[in-house]
Amino acid sequence: MEIALAKNYGFCFGVKRAIKIAEEHPGSSTLGPLIHNNLEIERLKKDFGVSLANSLEEVKAGQATVIRTHGIPKNDLERLKEKGGEVIDATCPFVTKPQQIVEEMSKEGYDIVIFGDENHPEIKGVMSYAVGPVYAVLSVEQLEKLHLKERVAVVAQTTRKIEEYNKIVNYLIPRHKEVRVFNTICNATFENQDAAKELAQKADVMIVIGGKQSSNTKQLFSICKKFCHDSYHIESKDELKKSWFENKKLCGITAGASTPEWIIEEIIGKIREFKV
Amino acid sequence: MEIALAKNYGFCFGVKRAIKIAEEHPGSSTLGPLIHNNLEIERLKKDFGVSLANSLEEVKAGQATVIRTHGIPKNDLERLKEKGGEVIDATCPFVTKPQQIVEEMSKEGYDIVIFGDENHPEIKGVMSYAVGPVYAVLSVEQLEKLHLKERVAVVAQTTRKIEEYNKIVNYLIPRHKEVRVFNTICNATFENQDAAKELAQKADVMIVIGGKQSSNTKQLFSICKKFCHDSYHIESKDELKKSWFENKKLCGITAGASTPEWIIEEIIGKIREFKV
Repeated sequence: MEIALAKNYGFCFGVKRAIKIAEEHPGSSTLGPLIHNNLEIERLKKDFGVSLANSLEEVKAGQATVIRTHGIPKNDLERLKEKGGEVIDATCPFVTKPQQIVEEMSKEGYDIVIFGDENHPEIKGVMSYAVGPVYAVLSVEQLEKLHLKERVAVVAQTTRKIEEYNKIVNYLIPRHKEVRVFNTICNATFENQDAAKELAQKADVMIVIGGKQSSNTKQLFSICKKFCHDSYHIESKDELKKSWFENKKLCGITAGASTPEWIIEEIIGKIREFKV
Repeated sequence: MEIALAKNYGFCFGVKRAIKIAEEHPGSSTLGPLIHNNLEIERLKKDFGVSLANSLEEVKAGQATVIRTHGIPKNDLERLKEKGGEVIDATCPFVTKPQQIVEEMSKEGYDIVIFGDENHPEIKGVMSYAVGPVYAVLSVEQLEKLHLKERVAVVAQTTRKIEEYNKIVNYLIPRHKEVRVFNTICNATFENQDAAKELAQKADVMIVIGGKQSSNTKQLFSICKKFCHDSYHIESKDELKKSWFENKKLCGITAGASTPEWIIEEIIGKIREFKV
């Protein structure tokens, strides 16, 4: 039986990059969880001595610190630098970009609207770069309550859907002289879904790897099930059954956005051991 | 019977302004028809000696020339200046604005998309201000064929509908890093319609003045008819009938965008003569 990985699966570019950066700085700490995955954070601690500082107070003076994938607020960054240790930036470039845009547009006098969740670390970071009025909204209803100037610049949280972003923009255009729209949406989630669909159409068995509660993994599973009847959603190699693979020609593999590569490799290894 | 004019009716701000400018320059010529109304152009000729030059060749050397409401292409303006006569700009400020935006954005390296008809004099003028790539489109289908750069600036013909404009913008946002949207739509037509509706709800007879073929006048009439049963669409005072106004308390008046003020005044004068 042949085993094929989806063209896109699991961790996105920014998460992979952040982990690589952390591995290259053994003994450092990260300010806040580097990424949204506890197993991976434990692995970094065990194998690379990368510890977790939950707040600025927990960062030791002179300690090398990795900035997490979602970025941190500008003030925190400045306070971190004052601690005197090396500051290693693992902020995803797709998050650094809206931070820069917000700073620049805000300096040019635009009111800033961010389509995103103001409680999310990414958005807290992005908002902190504004030097003037800045608002994070998730709906047109929230926009209606704002009093914005004639010129508005708009960015989106990287994980938002473009259709929803357009609704925000469509509300603003008739009401303002200029709306400067920056497409800061990252397509990683949608690329994983498209790749899963493509592979599921060819495979006769699909293994979808990721937390049973992970909403993006469940979404991947539901897509695979639609195109490949023998699709299975598992968290670890212990759930695999040899019978799933008997008389199959092509086994497709995909994984949710919070699934580390080593879990995927363990599972592929176990499937190979079945020698079907 | 009381007679009330709609809060907005007839000529828009830009047309009124252009006529005033022409009247202030007796003996001048206009390059192309000043506005889209022949009766008014004849009146300007008769009362103010303002003649019509259909092309640059027809403009006499040293002759004072009025630039029409819709503006003219940049090249034509330069050639006109070379003729040596005074150049009087009656371009509507709502048209000058997109001309300036297109020039500026184009110099900053943006590809320019104009939502409008490339054969309309306004758009011919606006397009001429680009120093780089510029495209006029009326639909998403036309956009699909273009190869635009990452940064795009967008303006709209002043008479377009905002909903249609949003469709153009919605197509561009997911495909480009930055879409800079300028709201250059003028609400004059929609303001006339809103005002007609408001007045028709109070009036017991409505007179809608404008060409029988004028599409915007017909639209005004259809709005009035919906809210006031006794609505009449007329072109001139000769069509008025005394019986329409008998036992009425409030007569509402509105007019299409190509209806000069003096025609409206003639009609109001005639209604007053009925002494109802």
